[in-house]
Amino acid sequence: MAMYSFQNDYSEGAHPDILAALQRCNLEQNIGYGLDDHSLRAAELIKARFGCADADVHFLMGGTQVNQTAIAAFLRPHQAVISAADGHIYVHEAGAIEATGHKILPVSSPDAKLTPAGIEAVLAEHGGDEHMVQPRLVYLSNATDMGAAYTLGELEAIAACCRQNSLLLYLDGARLGQALMADGVEMQPEDIARLCDAFYIGGTKNGMLLGEALVIVNDALKADFRYLIKQRGAMMAKGFVVGLQFEAAFAGTLYFDLAAHANAMAARLAEGIENHGGRLLLPQQTNMIYPVLPLTAIAELEKKFRFYVRGFRDGKTASLRMVTSWVTSKEKIDTFLERLGQLM
Amino acid sequence: MAMYSFQNDYSEGAHPDILAALQRCNLEQNIGYGLDDHSLRAAELIKARFGCADADVHFLMGGTQVNQTAIAAFLRPHQAVISAADGHIYVHEAGAIEATGHKILPVSSPDAKLTPAGIEAVLAEHGGDEHMVQPRLVYLSNATDMGAAYTLGELEAIAACCRQNSLLLYLDGARLGQALMADGVEMQPEDIARLCDAFYIGGTKNGMLLGEALVIVNDALKADFRYLIKQRGAMMAKGFVVGLQFEAAFAGTLYFDLAAHANAMAARLAEGIENHGGRLLLPQQTNMIYPVLPLTAIAELEKKFRFYVRGFRDGKTASLRMVTSWVTSKEKIDTFLERLGQLM
Amino acid sequence: MAMYSFQNDYSEGAHPDILAALQRCNLEQNIGYGLDDHSLRAAELIKARFGCADADVHFLMGGTQVNQTAIAAFLRPHQAVISAADGHIYVHEAGAIEATGHKILPVSSPDAKLTPAGIEAVLAEHGGDEHMVQPRLVYLSNATDMGAAYTLGELEAIAACCRQNSLLLYLDGARLGQALMADGVEMQPEDIARLCDAFYIGGTKNGMLLGEALVIVNDALKADFRYLIKQRGAMMAKGFVVGLQFEAAFAGTLYFDLAAHANAMAARLAEGIENHGGRLLLPQQTNMIYPVLPLTAIAELEKKFRFYVRGFRDGKTASLRMVTSWVTSKEKIDTFLERLGQLM
Amino acid sequence: MAMYSFQNDYSEGAHPDILAALQRCNLEQNIGYGLDDHSLRAAELIKARFGCADADVHFLMGGTQVNQTAIAAFLRPHQAVISAADGHIYVHEAGAIEATGHKILPVSSPDAKLTPAGIEAVLAEHGGDEHMVQPRLVYLSNATDMGAAYTLGELEAIAACCRQNSLLLYLDGARLGQALMADGVEMQPEDIARLCDAFYIGGTKNGMLLGEALVIVNDALKADFRYLIKQRGAMMAKGFVVGLQFEAAFAGTLYFDLAAHANAMAARLAEGIENHGGRLLLPQQTNMIYPVLPLTAIAELEKKFRFYVRGFRDGKTASLRMVTSWVTSKEKIDTFLERLGQLM
Repeated sequence: MAMYSFQNDYSEGAHPDILAALQRCNLEQNIGYGLDDHSLRAAELIKARFGCADADVHFLMGGTQVNQTAIAAFLRPHQAVISAADGHIYVHEAGAIEATGHKILPVSSPDAKLTPAGIEAVLAEHGGDEHMVQPRLVYLSNATDMGAAYTLGELEAIAACCRQNSLLLYLDGARLGQALMADGVEMQPEDIARLCDAFYIGGTKNGMLLGEALVIVNDALKADFRYLIKQRGAMMAKGFVVGLQFEAAFAGTLYFDLAAHANAMAARLAEGIENHGGRLLLPQQTNMIYPVLPLTAIAELEKKFRFYVRGFRDGKTASLRMVTSWVTSKEKIDTFLERLGQLM
Repeated sequence: MAMYSFQNDYSEGAHPDILAALQRCNLEQNIGYGLDDHSLRAAELIKARFGCADADVHFLMGGTQVNQTAIAAFLRPHQAVISAADGHIYVHEAGAIEATGHKILPVSSPDAKLTPAGIEAVLAEHGGDEHMVQPRLVYLSNATDMGAAYTLGELEAIAACCRQNSLLLYLDGARLGQALMADGVEMQPEDIARLCDAFYIGGTKNGMLLGEALVIVNDALKADFRYLIKQRGAMMAKGFVVGLQFEAAFAGTLYFDLAAHANAMAARLAEGIENHGGRLLLPQQTNMIYPVLPLTAIAELEKKFRFYVRGFRDGKTASLRMVTSWVTSKEKIDTFLERLGQLM
Repeated sequence: MAMYSFQNDYSEGAHPDILAALQRCNLEQNIGYGLDDHSLRAAELIKARFGCADADVHFLMGGTQVNQTAIAAFLRPHQAVISAADGHIYVHEAGAIEATGHKILPVSSPDAKLTPAGIEAVLAEHGGDEHMVQPRLVYLSNATDMGAAYTLGELEAIAACCRQNSLLLYLDGARLGQALMADGVEMQPEDIARLCDAFYIGGTKNGMLLGEALVIVNDALKADFRYLIKQRGAMMAKGFVVGLQFEAAFAGTLYFDLAAHANAMAARLAEGIENHGGRLLLPQQTNMIYPVLPLTAIAELEKKFRFYVRGFRDGKTASLRMVTSWVTSKEKIDTFLERLGQLM
Repeated sequence: MAMYSFQNDYSEGAHPDILAALQRCNLEQNIGYGLDDHSLRAAELIKARFGCADADVHFLMGGTQVNQTAIAAFLRPHQAVISAADGHIYVHEAGAIEATGHKILPVSSPDAKLTPAGIEAVLAEHGGDEHMVQPRLVYLSNATDMGAAYTLGELEAIAACCRQNSLLLYLDGARLGQALMADGVEMQPEDIARLCDAFYIGGTKNGMLLGEALVIVNDALKADFRYLIKQRGAMMAKGFVVGLQFEAAFAGTLYFDLAAHANAMAARLAEGIENHGGRLLLPQQTNMIYPVLPLTAIAELEKKFRFYVRGFRDGKTASLRMVTSWVTSKEKIDTFLERLGQLM
């Protein structure tokens, strides 16, 4: 039997409905560079769903690319980004933001969340003196890089802090669907658009072949944005390839259904692990969990399953990173849990 | 009847065989970031076909992105690029190369081709003085941005000039298939790999959904290249989406067949236009032609067909840019020619 | 006898009055980073002299540095600069502007001057399409890199063209004194401030040890400029070293007197050369001239004098670039002319 | 009586011998851009004094500029810098390094020193994965930004760590003289050149008007460096202005004498403060000290002296940053101490 991977949510292709849309429209002639009807319709669907009729929506190809294009477009050269120390842009984008000339000011936290206190501590150290960079944009990922989802109250507090301090608020939504569908999170799509200056809706990690939708809400950030997409190499000749995937995902409830499925599979996995005596580093909220298991069990599980082992916490156990997705099945979860049960 | 577009070669999706490959592998689990088996196999097929067993092959998403990533990786900050004044990077990439810090030194020519004489004229003006940039890389596109294809002799002469002058030779192959399949061009894929330090093989404009294959032949340019892909936002989580398209295109002769088809359709179109009394700005070689037609005929043709009108050359005629592709049919060509016949 | 150099206007140190100011204030304690009283006073003197009470004045160290800092601060990443093809930033700054990410769009002209027609030709080629850069700033040098001085009418026409087309006008005044003191130029310092969005007043080439004064007139360009100075490495700890040189130069008429002297010496040199049968490529206006002389005479002159030989125009003559300065004496001119007389 | 400042070591102009050299050579004609005889002679003197006959020496204008020019020249785009979290480049250069595209990876320490353990911890987190930046250069300042001086053993350990890990070692010597003259530091200039790949010798903070000497020891880092100086706007037309200051400073022992004087004044100040019951945050080693004094005393001292108050550590005391220099006199120290004595 082949190994089964829980390493990430981008191991497979696209949800069948999305692939079918590509197939169905394959021989249509579309205008290039994202100006086609599918992209325009997808943009309208997104604006309706997020309640931001006046926003600009741009379709790009990947998360690092969106973060880099947007952040560099929004800042002047001396301005800096505040991010959680575990934020994707600070750790895992090979310095893509700094490559555009901007410093990232990190704030530590256990679940990769930012808070107003963390932001204000950075501001306090940067008091308007030109010898230091000028903090100007707050970057947060939701879900975070540790799989946590912000509550509405948390995001409102951060947004208020940003407005008081003339900071832009930018949200990396590589897993925005999963964050919005997290159990107990009362946040609605409209709240995201209301609270953020700009954000992106991730496709790659939620059932599309590729593609992310950047939504710019703040009028002051909209001008000439297509120039910046082009200049960063982020404009696709066949832009409709992304546009029609988002059209398919947002025509109905598919986008959120897929995220809910991924979350449900993670919840089933988490619950099963706890039932077998494992524990979680952080409570499961979205589709990424961090179980702590005995090294002996891990060694056996690695023969049939792939996941990341994040560090040996003592001589006997280690924490794993396990990710479920739109395509993970109950059967795969249960097979894993069954094997775990034998080992615990 | 809907308008039919001859504006470019990226209006439709992908060749059915390529789409079928995506469909067939959709639920496979693949390793992320281009390290999957499809990408590895595609790389091997390309290296075999171009006779460069030791080359490194990387799959990126689009042409501007490849040009920007590669050129910026190959140069130190003070080094500059020599390009035809009509070269894509000089005119139509929104300053993407300059955005990475590098000046482009333009050389004028009627068909967007470079020559040793043009290169040497730039070198003569830049004599090793640190007050000027240092020319270090020659960029050429083949086919050129005017649809011309280099002959083997022309490319050999440029490559010799580059080696004599310690210049790197980089070839933009957005339409490399079309160039290699041009009538009377005796150049083989192996010649490209033998003569260039690096080049890319275009997928987007030759029947794929997206994707370009960068081939780095010169060992000195290989180190750490994946870092640079990542840092430019050019690394796809689902890299296999590009890898398996190239695998399908290079498993047999599909890649070159599609290019040959596009060229043949352009030849048919060109011949028909000339038969009807039109003329061409440049001889047809690949899948892009520049017919000169009466303004009165153009006005009528625009009611049923889309193409670019490039400039009014006198009060009576204008030149068009017309592009055929892997999917253009004889029927569409003939419909156009029939209408043209009525108008001439 | 040592060789005497007419190669440039930065071979010697500083005018004695300026050096005396440095000496006199040497043991004063001054606040760092350009916030000292001398710099503040110099800024006031400059604003008064140029009639721009609300301008911001910043003191930097050299011309390339000012151009790079200012232009990069004034533009967004996709925006480009229009410059004469002989403009200093296009040719002789080692790609310093492109190194900040901005393309320069060159316009050819015999005397390195720009015109509205040249600017509009560039605009016509860049019609608001995000595939090309967006022209946003006009760079001109006055005196030009060929020693020409703009007339008031010429500068007014360019400024009008810029305003009609939403272009910023930036003037490189490395030799602004010499341009304003050129015979027959009715332009006043106030005109420079009235017509330009920003400009700099050169110190290095007009009798100071180092230093240039950047004047930002347009309010929209002022914000946070000190951050950008600092970030470019252009902020001096001992900023007062530049400030007090400008204070000395603008307390009275010294700045313009030195420029007038340099011009007068060039006029004497030009007249003498013409009297001896030489001719000039361009009419002498400022302190840089381009005499055309027989190769035989040049070969002899090179034994006692240094100057640049710019190219052999036929088998018998070549053009020289000769530069006078604040410190060039009549005696040196006459010694040169005497020797020339013997050779012609 | 005017306020007396202990805020920094760049409040006054230049040591009289240095100013005299400028005066003496003022009317000499020198070749431009740092190719003059003074600069060449100064380079020879420095190479002799530091025992690095094959090094390249370049004269630049300021510390941020040298750091930015050198680091950006030495690294490829994906490579990062390891620095103390209090390092000048990480905190106080307005993001000048990031503006060239490079991330800085900070390591915390009480005295702003780096250690092999700190460097290795960063390496352990960056294990050769292209999703993260690649650490490639270690930046340290000596004296550190807290006034500490590395011992020979400490620097040797860091250099060994760098060599084992293929890291370049770059030393910011804004206060290198003060570090080498620190009591009990057995390090010789030759050790600096032997252990570092490149370093700079600060002039601005040790009695010159401006200027820093960059010494590149590692052959692999030398190529084309003047291009990079020019492109960063760091090349002075009157390069001899810096060259002859270094010539004057290194013709004899002046450079080190001035540093020793500054240190001695700081020692006198530190000792006096301790005698009056104050204490120091860190032991005095160079010309920068951090006394902790009662708030009541500080309030009185501020009426006659300037210094930085760095933070209130409890309700009753605060720590100051006080800096002495080549020109600080015993009288000024004693006046301060006398007043302090009255207040304690």
